[in-house]
Amino acid sequence: MALIVQKYGGTSVGTPERIKNVARRIAACRERGDDVIVVVSAMSGETNRLIGLTKEVSSKPLPRELDVVVSTGEQVTIGLLCMALHDIDVKAKSYTGGQVRILTDSAHTKARILSIDEAPIRRDLSEGSVIVVAGFQGVDEAGNITTLGRGGSDTTAVAIAAALKADECQIYTDVDGVYTTDPRIVSEARKLDSITFEEMLELASLGSKVLQIRSVEFAGKYKVKLRVLSSFEDQGEGTLITVEEDQNMEQPIISGIAFNRDEAKITVLGAPDRPGIAYRILGPVADSNVDVDMIVQNVGHDGATDFSFTVSRGDVEKALKALEAAKGEIGEHVIETDTTMAKVSVVGVGMRSHPGVAAKMFRALGDEGINIQMIATSEIRISVAIEEKYLELAVRVLHKAFGLDQA
Amino acid sequence: MALIVQKYGGTSVGTPERIKNVARRIAACRERGDDVIVVVSAMSGETNRLIGLTKEVSSKPLPRELDVVVSTGEQVTIGLLCMALHDIDVKAKSYTGGQVRILTDSAHTKARILSIDEAPIRRDLSEGSVIVVAGFQGVDEAGNITTLGRGGSDTTAVAIAAALKADECQIYTDVDGVYTTDPRIVSEARKLDSITFEEMLELASLGSKVLQIRSVEFAGKYKVKLRVLSSFEDQGEGTLITVEEDQNMEQPIISGIAFNRDEAKITVLGAPDRPGIAYRILGPVADSNVDVDMIVQNVGHDGATDFSFTVSRGDVEKALKALEAAKGEIGEHVIETDTTMAKVSVVGVGMRSHPGVAAKMFRALGDEGINIQMIATSEIRISVAIEEKYLELAVRVLHKAFGLDQA
Repeated sequence: MALIVQKYGGTSVGTPERIKNVARRIAACRERGDDVIVVVSAMSGETNRLIGLTKEVSSKPLPRELDVVVSTGEQVTIGLLCMALHDIDVKAKSYTGGQVRILTDSAHTKARILSIDEAPIRRDLSEGSVIVVAGFQGVDEAGNITTLGRGGSDTTAVAIAAALKADECQIYTDVDGVYTTDPRIVSEARKLDSITFEEMLELASLGSKVLQIRSVEFAGKYKVKLRVLSSFEDQGEGTLITVEEDQNMEQPIISGIAFNRDEAKITVLGAPDRPGIAYRILGPVADSNVDVDMIVQNVGHDGATDFSFTVSRGDVEKALKALEAAKGEIGEHVIETDTTMAKVSVVGVGMRSHPGVAAKMFRALGDEGINIQMIATSEIRISVAIEEKYLELAVRVLHKAFGLDQA
Repeated sequence: MALIVQKYGGTSVGTPERIKNVARRIAACRERGDDVIVVVSAMSGETNRLIGLTKEVSSKPLPRELDVVVSTGEQVTIGLLCMALHDIDVKAKSYTGGQVRILTDSAHTKARILSIDEAPIRRDLSEGSVIVVAGFQGVDEAGNITTLGRGGSDTTAVAIAAALKADECQIYTDVDGVYTTDPRIVSEARKLDSITFEEMLELASLGSKVLQIRSVEFAGKYKVKLRVLSSFEDQGEGTLITVEEDQNMEQPIISGIAFNRDEAKITVLGAPDRPGIAYRILGPVADSNVDVDMIVQNVGHDGATDFSFTVSRGDVEKALKALEAAKGEIGEHVIETDTTMAKVSVVGVGMRSHPGVAAKMFRALGDEGINIQMIATSEIRISVAIEEKYLELAVRVLHKAFGLDQA
């Protein structure tokens, strides 16, 4: 008898009919003899409806009260799901974040979980109940309602799995697992049976939206066995996210290819090449709350240097304004902006032990005449910035070059 | 500096705009220097929407989970109202029933308040905050969410006023006070400046829907000064509901005229006139959960008696079925049903010291040719059953006969 934590997102519980489907899925799990704790999100659209209401009342809603309002979305779902379970003779009991006592800090709208009181859950499990917990919410030390921020239900599920040492934490979504890349771009994309936490983190940070990044970090830290599955299909094992690469198996060098269209390049041309110039350029940009991604500084010549960095396209205006304000600090220069950039990344823990990955990637792109404008790397990832029009081609070429289309 | 509890119903907080209006009303009260505790209902329509959702999921929603779902309605309102208050620089803090610790019994969907923890409220009041409490809800000893049943927000307000010994509990509704009778029937109906709890209870039980009857009982028991006001008008003192009749003033004999169209008369003709016949007839009716209102047993003749009683029209079928099942017990009889009855009542504490009220009432009706079919009395009320077609005429005649059109 295993202890399973299951998390169902907003789409999976989006209608009364779908809530009844989820109930049947839970019943099947109970019939296999497992203990089940379920974490649910608000019905899809509900959180936005509630936020809309707050905006009608206040242009700048008080964070404490925003949490009071928004947390009702998940509370409705837990009640409805328990009713549906009861109707098919599955004993169930709902818990709000406050009732299960998911203790968080007091950072309203983006709180962090500090601890979970496992005693009431253990007691109800031992009495044969399915436990249904409202995701995304908790209470602080003073009993104020807090929320964990968007996607926080994944984090709730992982935190409960960690606290109760569950055998597995299953995240049900509208996709059936993690893919080598987006199947809408590469029809040969394959679902991965397993992937490491590090790889998943890199993929998530690069825009793959299967799991909330914080929940993956959390699962990695507490060694929670995490699995992504579809709530709309009855078959399939989904993708298991593992703590360590499997030592017994031949690991693929590359696990997946991620990409992001939303890139813009800002270049500062001919700035005086002196110590501290990188800070004089990027400091003001960071101060205006713009995330800088890739950075390249060219070798100086004639006492001047060219300095490029990428930002999200939506941040270009803010970044330019920050540079304009700091132009006295930077010294004489010209600014160029390119908003037709894209980023492609290959991710895989295997590249630690296989040095030729970068060369292989650059050659595959070069063979297709795709010019690499910037490069960034981590221990298990290589990212390149290219012109957006080459994006699909680049993803397909790399997918094939690293043999991801083969099982 | 007074401590005021204000309660706003669903219509008063029915839209974001109305919530902002309520905030301005509270701000005005603060400016007069009073401490304010506010109790709110769910936005109008919200409770029904939530109940609708539960019915889509389950034909017989689990009461514990029904409370979990339905209680979110008030939780949304408290958050929104606090935001609106904050926006006009009024410090405010919201409390769910669980947070303020309104402790109830465990009778889900119809729980009764056992105690209220006044410490957190006192602390926040002393810090200059307006306290906004979700009406209609509480928690039981085990921390389960409970609700008090429809209209329970009035009870929450009165219970808080009692616990904190507030100077006044103001119930804001869509009417501006308690009237001598329904102004839609008698244009000369006057708003009463004050009325006693006993009178209010009689009026409420007779179908006057200004206040929930339980909240009036509660207020009477704990001697809470209760006032009914309109949330849509800025003028007016509403109607004060007082613990005792004012000894210093000339009391009117009659305070108001109540009526109810929803009456049906069931008559058992020619039943054997023997001891216990009333129980044999009414026992089965009560057992089938039908409330019996007025009862008349005619003098027996030839060993037989005629026995009449009134029930709500919606209960006629159930009552007849109960009588049919018990016909062996009752003995030979014939049953007649009349579903065109109405009830008119005059209510006033003054009738205790003025014996001629009944005679005056009967004469006024008789002068208009209105036949009285049944009579029932309490210490401060006389009710008569008449044909429904005479209802408006009867109310107008009595309103005039007792001088209620004169200030």
